[in-house]
Amino acid sequence: MTFDQDAVLAAIDRAVAKASQASTSWGESDAPVRAALLRGLALALEHNQAELVGIANDETGLGESRLNGEVARTVFQLRGFADVVDAGVPYRRVDDAAVAGPPPVGRPHLTRVQRPLGAVAVFCASNFPFAFSVLGGDTASALAAGCPVIVKAHAGHPALSRAVYALARQVVAEQGLPEGILTLVEGASRQSGVHLVQHPHIAAVAFTGSWQGGMALRKVANERPRPVPFYGELGSLNPLVALPAALQEQSDILAALLAGSITQGCGQFCTSPGVIVVLDDPASERFIEQLISAIRPIQTHRMLTPSIRAGFDHASTNVASNTHQLFQPMADGDGPAPRLYSVDAATFIANDALREEMFGPAALIVKATSVEQIEQVLGAIGGALTTTLWGLEQDSEPNRALARAAQAIAGRVLFAGVPTGVAICAAQQHGGPWPSSTAPQNTSVGYAAIERFLRPVALQDAPAWLFNGQA
Amino acid sequence: MTFDQDAVLAAIDRAVAKASQASTSWGESDAPVRAALLRGLALALEHNQAELVGIANDETGLGESRLNGEVARTVFQLRGFADVVDAGVPYRRVDDAAVAGPPPVGRPHLTRVQRPLGAVAVFCASNFPFAFSVLGGDTASALAAGCPVIVKAHAGHPALSRAVYALARQVVAEQGLPEGILTLVEGASRQSGVHLVQHPHIAAVAFTGSWQGGMALRKVANERPRPVPFYGELGSLNPLVALPAALQEQSDILAALLAGSITQGCGQFCTSPGVIVVLDDPASERFIEQLISAIRPIQTHRMLTPSIRAGFDHASTNVASNTHQLFQPMADGDGPAPRLYSVDAATFIANDALREEMFGPAALIVKATSVEQIEQVLGAIGGALTTTLWGLEQDSEPNRALARAAQAIAGRVLFAGVPTGVAICAAQQHGGPWPSSTAPQNTSVGYAAIERFLRPVALQDAPAWLFNGQA
Repeated sequence: MTFDQDAVLAAIDRAVAKASQASTSWGESDAPVRAALLRGLALALEHNQAELVGIANDETGLGESRLNGEVARTVFQLRGFADVVDAGVPYRRVDDAAVAGPPPVGRPHLTRVQRPLGAVAVFCASNFPFAFSVLGGDTASALAAGCPVIVKAHAGHPALSRAVYALARQVVAEQGLPEGILTLVEGASRQSGVHLVQHPHIAAVAFTGSWQGGMALRKVANERPRPVPFYGELGSLNPLVALPAALQEQSDILAALLAGSITQGCGQFCTSPGVIVVLDDPASERFIEQLISAIRPIQTHRMLTPSIRAGFDHASTNVASNTHQLFQPMADGDGPAPRLYSVDAATFIANDALREEMFGPAALIVKATSVEQIEQVLGAIGGALTTTLWGLEQDSEPNRALARAAQAIAGRVLFAGVPTGVAICAAQQHGGPWPSSTAPQNTSVGYAAIERFLRPVALQDAPAWLFNGQA
Repeated sequence: MTFDQDAVLAAIDRAVAKASQASTSWGESDAPVRAALLRGLALALEHNQAELVGIANDETGLGESRLNGEVARTVFQLRGFADVVDAGVPYRRVDDAAVAGPPPVGRPHLTRVQRPLGAVAVFCASNFPFAFSVLGGDTASALAAGCPVIVKAHAGHPALSRAVYALARQVVAEQGLPEGILTLVEGASRQSGVHLVQHPHIAAVAFTGSWQGGMALRKVANERPRPVPFYGELGSLNPLVALPAALQEQSDILAALLAGSITQGCGQFCTSPGVIVVLDDPASERFIEQLISAIRPIQTHRMLTPSIRAGFDHASTNVASNTHQLFQPMADGDGPAPRLYSVDAATFIANDALREEMFGPAALIVKATSVEQIEQVLGAIGGALTTTLWGLEQDSEPNRALARAAQAIAGRVLFAGVPTGVAICAAQQHGGPWPSSTAPQNTSVGYAAIERFLRPVALQDAPAWLFNGQA
């Protein structure tokens, strides 16, 4: 499907105008109204799950099992944000009573409240057609904050986007809410994305996607006459450090787990482990052999789009040309066959090109000669959504140093398991230092995501009526 | 005093290197250590108050009474942040226990902690030589967060900056802490500011100053290879709306209060009320006459720097040329004589040039014909640190609309009193929508200011030892 650009831009203008009109009433809506919408949207997804998963599978090839799991996650998330609303999070206040006398001790009565920013543009991801799409986490958290949402559909699953939006629109109408609370715009051109981000009535942007696309839109958001927050979740290498201490026993089980994580969803996860760091040690060598055995025969499904496939081939060829290929990949099936490369840590640290993300079923093994050198590898990566550390059970100075280095570069640090799979809860942090996120003090998954769309206002000597009947 | 630029840049590099070296130990310091430093700094200011105020008065001309008040505020603020540290704010955790079973309900154990960003560059303000300078709120909140601070002294009070820094350095040494926790750099050139903001080991920037200066440095911060948060508090018009309901009785008292606020510190406050909005009404006319009588004879002290004086003359001449001058100002004394201008709301809304900040003892009275037009005036201003609303005691739809419009454009909304004077407490919000702040979801005054320098990290399945002996 192609789009007439003028029509696309006009549709964006209409959607933002509707959102803007809805922003006062939605921003002042009370908790029961807001939570009911979120729960209504969850229920609509559940009631139409089979049909939606069918559409999604046709468009993305991600498989029904994965897609059913993703719907469950999306529904759980919508209900979770309804609970956050019921708990009063967007309505919370900090109240400081007046103190008589001169300053600094004396002060007026101050009440700190949170106000929604206004209309939010949500750019959907290709790789999570439910959980980071029309009714995904960005939408759920913005609605919970009291912000209307304009969803920019991803061109990789247009029919699904329309089907989900049609359900959502019906829920909005049934609940007697203004249409502008949630609108969908299509048209995948760079021009239309820029138009949306530049729109004067857009108050914030949430984006999940590529580094290139995110960086371009971040620049647009920053250079507006009135800049707006740009919450971009971009690419990430997600280093996983496997110390010999973790590889003494049952390393074959860990190898199988890691092979599954690298190839899960054909490697199309922002949390996919792309760099595996080991120490020069016999246990590491055995583990690498086990990893090769585990990953080599894995059959992947087709990639989401031809351009993602082309990008993976390009990136993996680049990495291959500067590293050692650990085995000859099998013939490609529907998706590319898994690949593993290996390089010494000094070369990895010295060569920027090796830190290009391979978005697909591949990883680069980096061999370090010391824990200090592992810290340098992490420092060279600089920023990642996750860093995983295996083998830190003992309290020791080297382990503390490694934990410190991992926290310095990551939003989430795992001490067991694999980074794919991001739990939805209050403690979650999905957003790491640059370049993995453009706003690493914020998260796009978990309940703290609501904070992105709220702005504090201090009310000084406010009359009592201001707190009655207004959210 | 002039500076050799190469020497200035080398001094910045040395200071950042020291700060960077100190960042791990300071970032992991426990609450007693961190709070003791903040309290030690407060005590050093108190013990040397008379001498410091003398130096400050010579350099700034702000007057001993005001400067003694500012020291008290600065001391209060340092101790307040010590209390925030003692209360565990920078060490707080959100803990989600593991839940058995498959996702989305099942999850690993996750602990969300806060980690300090690293070395923070603090650009001092001219107009608060204590409270927004070497040991001001940015420094106090960054140190409380666990971040070393590099203070960029303001050229308007170099001797004071050095004297305060000498005391601070002594406190740091006496407490056995590394020198790099707090360093001072001088040299007021644009080049040196850019060099500091671009330094790869700078993790965040706090800036209080002019719109032009702040915007230039924000661009530098955003365009670094690794962008860093730029917390800029820039100019603000601080509209004050005086409805007839507030002016029926004792409006002479309000006029005197407002005249004092407009001229306080020779109008050199970022919260100085620069636009006074009234309705076309006899009570408003009487109030304007009372304001003229109150403000005309006020003698101001000299302005902080010749360039601030030149900027005020330029801005007030610009406003004068498009508005009605309400009275012939008295002859200038040490500082410029107060000025008042008047314009109708339609002209104010239509003419961008009238929204230029007059940083000095002047205000523009805007006459509106309806509450709706007042809302449009606020909308045209767009962003301000404060908005003051007088006469909203009654709950009514127009008053709700006005309160909503004020909250949409301001970080603090006052319903009584004047905006100058910013209480230091948990509920405070000093930072409004663009262009008054570059990061309106953050505050530079009050205890929430600490959040600017912390970044969340989710620890997944962390070993118990990680929470022992590490802050």
